[in-house]
Amino acid sequence: MIEEYQRKVEVCYSPALFPVYYSNKNCVVVVIDIFRATSAIVTAFQTGVEKIIPVASVDEALEYKNKGYLVGAERQGEIVKGFELGNSPFSFMDKSLKGKELILTTTNGTKAIYRAAAADKLIIGSFLNLTAVCNYLQRQNKDVLLLCAGWRDRYNLEDSLFAGAVVEILEKNPVFAGMSDSAIAAKHLYLTAKNDLNAFLKVSSHRKRLARLDLERDIEYCLQIDTTEVVPEFMGNGLYEHSALNERVI
Amino acid sequence: MIEEYQRKVEVCYSPALFPVYYSNKNCVVVVIDIFRATSAIVTAFQTGVEKIIPVASVDEALEYKNKGYLVGAERQGEIVKGFELGNSPFSFMDKSLKGKELILTTTNGTKAIYRAAAADKLIIGSFLNLTAVCNYLQRQNKDVLLLCAGWRDRYNLEDSLFAGAVVEILEKNPVFAGMSDSAIAAKHLYLTAKNDLNAFLKVSSHRKRLARLDLERDIEYCLQIDTTEVVPEFMGNGLYEHSALNERVI
Repeated sequence: MIEEYQRKVEVCYSPALFPVYYSNKNCVVVVIDIFRATSAIVTAFQTGVEKIIPVASVDEALEYKNKGYLVGAERQGEIVKGFELGNSPFSFMDKSLKGKELILTTTNGTKAIYRAAAADKLIIGSFLNLTAVCNYLQRQNKDVLLLCAGWRDRYNLEDSLFAGAVVEILEKNPVFAGMSDSAIAAKHLYLTAKNDLNAFLKVSSHRKRLARLDLERDIEYCLQIDTTEVVPEFMGNGLYEHSALNERVI
Repeated sequence: MIEEYQRKVEVCYSPALFPVYYSNKNCVVVVIDIFRATSAIVTAFQTGVEKIIPVASVDEALEYKNKGYLVGAERQGEIVKGFELGNSPFSFMDKSLKGKELILTTTNGTKAIYRAAAADKLIIGSFLNLTAVCNYLQRQNKDVLLLCAGWRDRYNLEDSLFAGAVVEILEKNPVFAGMSDSAIAAKHLYLTAKNDLNAFLKVSSHRKRLARLDLERDIEYCLQIDTTEVVPEFMGNGLYEHSALNERVI
C-alpha cells in the first residue's frame, strides 16, 4: 500500500518561492546550484571531506575562520578576499581535505540551503551525482522538490537544466505520477539541450559571467554527468555524505 | 542615439517574484494570465468595453456591485456566487457591454495586475493579441518584463508559452539584445509546443483543472493567435484600450 503513494515532482525556480512550494512536509528537497556551489560540495565529499557547514553571510564565515576553521567564501563568482577557498570545485580536490570539516558561504547556493534547511530531507544535486540523486529519490517514499538556487532569486538556465535531467529520469518510474508544470517545462528544456549542454549554455547569463572570470575549466567540469555516487545530505547544521550519515545514525 | 538602447527582455514566472525582477523602472510590464483573465480582458475590449477596474478581493468587488457596477468575479475557475460574470471570455462578448465600465477580480490575473500596478507601463497580453502586444513593445524605447500570473504564485505552462511566443517575435529585432535566462527558456518551451499548443497543454495542471470544469471551449478560444489588435493598458486605477487612451491623453 505504502508503495503506491503517487509522488509529486515539482521544480521551484527561485529560493524566494520556496515557501510557496514547500506546503508539503513529506518531501525531499534537492538544492541545485550547478555553477558552482553544489558541484563544489559534491566534489568535496568525493574527496573525503567529512562535514560542510553552509553559512549565509561572509561575517559568519569570518567568525568561523577566526576560530581556526577552513572556510570557503565566494561572492560574485570570486573568492572573498582573506579566505583560502572560493566555490571552484577544483579547490575541493586536495587530498589534505579528507576527514576535515569545512565552512562554506556562496552567493546563491548556501543561501538556498539555508532557506530550505527545515525540510524533512535535504540533499545536494549536481550533474556530477545525477544518477545517485535519482536513486536516492526513488528509495524515499516522498514527494520531490527540486530547488534551483538561481542567481539572486532569478531563474537561471543551468539549474533548470539539471532539474529537467532529474525529471527525465524519475518520470520513467510510474510512482512519480504528479509532475508539476514547472517539472514538465524543465524536462522539455533539458531534452532541447542535452546533446550539448555547454553549447546550449553559451547564451546563458551566468555562463557569460563565469567566462568573463576565465572559469571555462570549471564550467566543463560542472557539466560532467555521473562522475561520483556521493549524495550530500543536510542534518543538524551541516552536510554529510549520505551513506556516512546512515552509518552514524545506526 | 536613443534608438540604439539595447533592451532587456525578462520573464518573471511568478507574481511573488515581481519585486526581484522589477529593479528597472524603464520597462513595460506585460501581465499574462492565458486561462483566462487576460484573454477575457482582451476580449472585453474587443467587444468595446471602455474601462475595466481590476480589484484584488471578492469583498472589494462586492462593494462595487452594491454600488451598481457590473462585476466579474472568479475563484478556483468558477463564477463567485452572487456575481453576473466570471472570467470566461465568452462572458465578455455581449454587445450590451459596449462603452461600459466593468469591475473584475480573478484568482491570479487581477492580483498580478495589482502587484505590478506601479510599473511605468503595464499592458495585458494573451495569444489573442500576441502581435499587437509585440508591436506595442517594439514602439517603446523600454525594457520588457513579461509577468506570468501563474497559479497561486506557482509556475504554469500556458503563461510561460505565451511569454515564449513574445520572445520569439522580439528576438528578431536586434534592439532586444538582452534576453534573460528565463526569456531563453520560455522561447525554447514555445518552440517545442507551438505546432499544437492545445495538445502540449493536455498534461498541464491548470488545463486539467479547466477540463474538469468543462471549459474546453474556453481553452480552445484562449489559444487562438491574433484575433484582435486591442492592447489593454493600465492607467490610474483601470485598464483602457491603448489607442483610446492615446486619444484621451491627447
